[in-house]
Amino acid sequence: MCGTCDGDKNGAAPAAATNPPSQSTANGVYPAQGQPKTSPYQSVQDYLSNVNNFKIIESTLREGEQFANAFFDTETKLKIAKALDNFGVDYIEVTSPVSSPQSFEDCKRICQLGLKAKVLTHVRCNMDDARKAVECGVDGVDLVIGTSSFLREYSHGKSMEMIQKIALEVIEYVKSQGVEVRFSSEDSFRSDLVDILTLYKAVDRAGVNRVGVADTVGGASPRMTYDLVRTLRGVVGCDIECHFHDDTGCSVANALSALEAGATHIDTSVLGIGERNGITPLGALMARMVVTAPEYVTSKYNLKALKSLEELVADSVQINIPFNNPITGFCAFTHKAGIHAKAILANPSTYEIIDPSLFGLTRYVSINSRITGWNAVKSRVEQLGLKMTDEQVKEVTAKIKQMADIRPLAIDDTDSIIRSYHLDVVQQ
Amino acid sequence: MCGTCDGDKNGAAPAAATNPPSQSTANGVYPAQGQPKTSPYQSVQDYLSNVNNFKIIESTLREGEQFANAFFDTETKLKIAKALDNFGVDYIEVTSPVSSPQSFEDCKRICQLGLKAKVLTHVRCNMDDARKAVECGVDGVDLVIGTSSFLREYSHGKSMEMIQKIALEVIEYVKSQGVEVRFSSEDSFRSDLVDILTLYKAVDRAGVNRVGVADTVGGASPRMTYDLVRTLRGVVGCDIECHFHDDTGCSVANALSALEAGATHIDTSVLGIGERNGITPLGALMARMVVTAPEYVTSKYNLKALKSLEELVADSVQINIPFNNPITGFCAFTHKAGIHAKAILANPSTYEIIDPSLFGLTRYVSINSRITGWNAVKSRVEQLGLKMTDEQVKEVTAKIKQMADIRPLAIDDTDSIIRSYHLDVVQQ
Repeated sequence: MCGTCDGDKNGAAPAAATNPPSQSTANGVYPAQGQPKTSPYQSVQDYLSNVNNFKIIESTLREGEQFANAFFDTETKLKIAKALDNFGVDYIEVTSPVSSPQSFEDCKRICQLGLKAKVLTHVRCNMDDARKAVECGVDGVDLVIGTSSFLREYSHGKSMEMIQKIALEVIEYVKSQGVEVRFSSEDSFRSDLVDILTLYKAVDRAGVNRVGVADTVGGASPRMTYDLVRTLRGVVGCDIECHFHDDTGCSVANALSALEAGATHIDTSVLGIGERNGITPLGALMARMVVTAPEYVTSKYNLKALKSLEELVADSVQINIPFNNPITGFCAFTHKAGIHAKAILANPSTYEIIDPSLFGLTRYVSINSRITGWNAVKSRVEQLGLKMTDEQVKEVTAKIKQMADIRPLAIDDTDSIIRSYHLDVVQQ
Repeated sequence: MCGTCDGDKNGAAPAAATNPPSQSTANGVYPAQGQPKTSPYQSVQDYLSNVNNFKIIESTLREGEQFANAFFDTETKLKIAKALDNFGVDYIEVTSPVSSPQSFEDCKRICQLGLKAKVLTHVRCNMDDARKAVECGVDGVDLVIGTSSFLREYSHGKSMEMIQKIALEVIEYVKSQGVEVRFSSEDSFRSDLVDILTLYKAVDRAGVNRVGVADTVGGASPRMTYDLVRTLRGVVGCDIECHFHDDTGCSVANALSALEAGATHIDTSVLGIGERNGITPLGALMARMVVTAPEYVTSKYNLKALKSLEELVADSVQINIPFNNPITGFCAFTHKAGIHAKAILANPSTYEIIDPSLFGLTRYVSINSRITGWNAVKSRVEQLGLKMTDEQVKEVTAKIKQMADIRPLAIDDTDSIIRSYHLDVVQQ
């Protein structure tokens, strides 16, 4: 049940005991073709790091349903659940069955699919919600309650003592039903540190499988994340799940920092869809982790399925995949500047940290602009099966740059300039 | 000339001497209405931090021109330069005048605009390029050369000794022309640490205004960034500029880490446009820094101009603003889940770390989904000028959720359900 942690549950187990030391490709490594597997920026004693041993809680069907454009009918939910399972995520989290009658039915249907991934649902920390969740047949119940002074005052109005009392009651019930249970605070980074550590310690003793840290408003930085997770790692023995919103653009980096500090599970959604501008995107996290922990990520996840998974979700919520999306953005592997193109043609590792073929994609070297270099044009000349000397290539490059100074060029415009120049050369 | 640093140039000045200690809203602070200005995750001794004292080198007209879709004619370049100046960036970097005849002319035109921002151009580290740059009338010349074994082998083929010799020659020339000079390595994180520190130390002694650290392939993590910049801060006395690509989704977090470690200047482009999927986006950096250093950012930058600036650039390169763009994404301030909406209506700080009005924007609370809560509906009922008891609002909320279970609802669908229910109530 408890993924990476089978240490004792007395809440005092130090992190190092329950989390294996990181492997040869530990955190901070910057691998690349022909590069050594260590870098001067790597800490040699990352005992806490889980960058080579993390799990994904995929929340497109819960957090993602909170995205402004999201309306998932049952068929769409089933399709997305199967696609996520095919990608290889560890958990699929779905909307609370309490939200609406259809949400209840859909949750049951997804549980009945017989997926490899475990199915979780995310409910408020009270007995009614927990009972309804268990009734659906989920593998685990994710309990959440706001612990910041903001949320205690303006949301549920409960004191920390009352929160703890309710939490222990609900946890005991869920455990008695033989189901995994996670307890998460909401807005953890704006909660009183002693308050939430006290609460986490109590629920850890009560035997939760995971505690959750949530940057609900998206304001945490990598360093704040490291510090909080590191502190928590010394307080609880159970797994640690982290949830990061992207309001300040740090959701991917925060996920990495959390894993470096000993977190075990990261929440994602496809393209990051969720409340406001969303959470850690599954694809961007893969981009980050395939660089940090290449063996782990390539052996565990079906990376070639990423693009179709993103397209499925983008279609379902009627959005375009962002132009600058890591990996699948239309230009993620397009090289344009002359000095870049020259080196890329000689060795792709010069300007690529990720091999596009890992994701079933290819690179493209642009030769249609005023910043084009002659090495890229030479490569295109060869692709076109034409013969020219380097001097001739340089001359036609100057012609291309001259045209590109006047108007945007398409690839066939450039090919026309090259062919026409070649014809002139042949006829001379 | 040298922005934040007027210490001596012997290369041995410790960072603390040239960088003021951080202010009351230093790095790591998580400000919010009614919150104290410190947090348990803040280091109280961030002497090196420049989060309250950084400068932006805006590279939409250089890095941005390397974006696959970019073709800027002269008029567009002038419009963008003026818009950036109006936003308040410190520097505007433009494409090398060596790239093409029009690039040369455009560089001169931008220099003649008389902007408040300083104009830089980014050229290869050789005398021919440097002369052409100075000829344009720029305020500063940004020199760049690849220092990783990859780039030395597959790009320019020069040894470190040869790089240093050329660098010192070119720097001396640029300085003799009374122009600012920056020296940057390319692919700094995959360069040999001792090699680049040796080189940076030499150019610092030669009197450069800034050295540049570039994550050219986008593989650096926040921790690697902190470690490299922190080390460099102890080696050079001049300013430190950082340039981060976004291939692994960490460009914003890396910029923050660099500032925490003592960097002084961050490269950005509007919407992050650049080679491949681009660099640190100006808007996302503002989202991050307005949370980390609110007084500094709100007093220095014209935040209300962000949206029109992004629209100008998006139009120029024919892209959509990503749905999940921090601040200006269409749903960045949309709240949907019942428990979120309830608290947001009571106090926006509960689920917002950034006040949208700082950017001239407004929030929106969605009430059209199966996860809608009755508090949000109650607020809409009041907006519509209708009178209902809480029990009645709960009843109509159930009707809305029932409909939303069947099909997507628009705001006027929901209003119709509310009005029709109200009519029934009144007629009873």
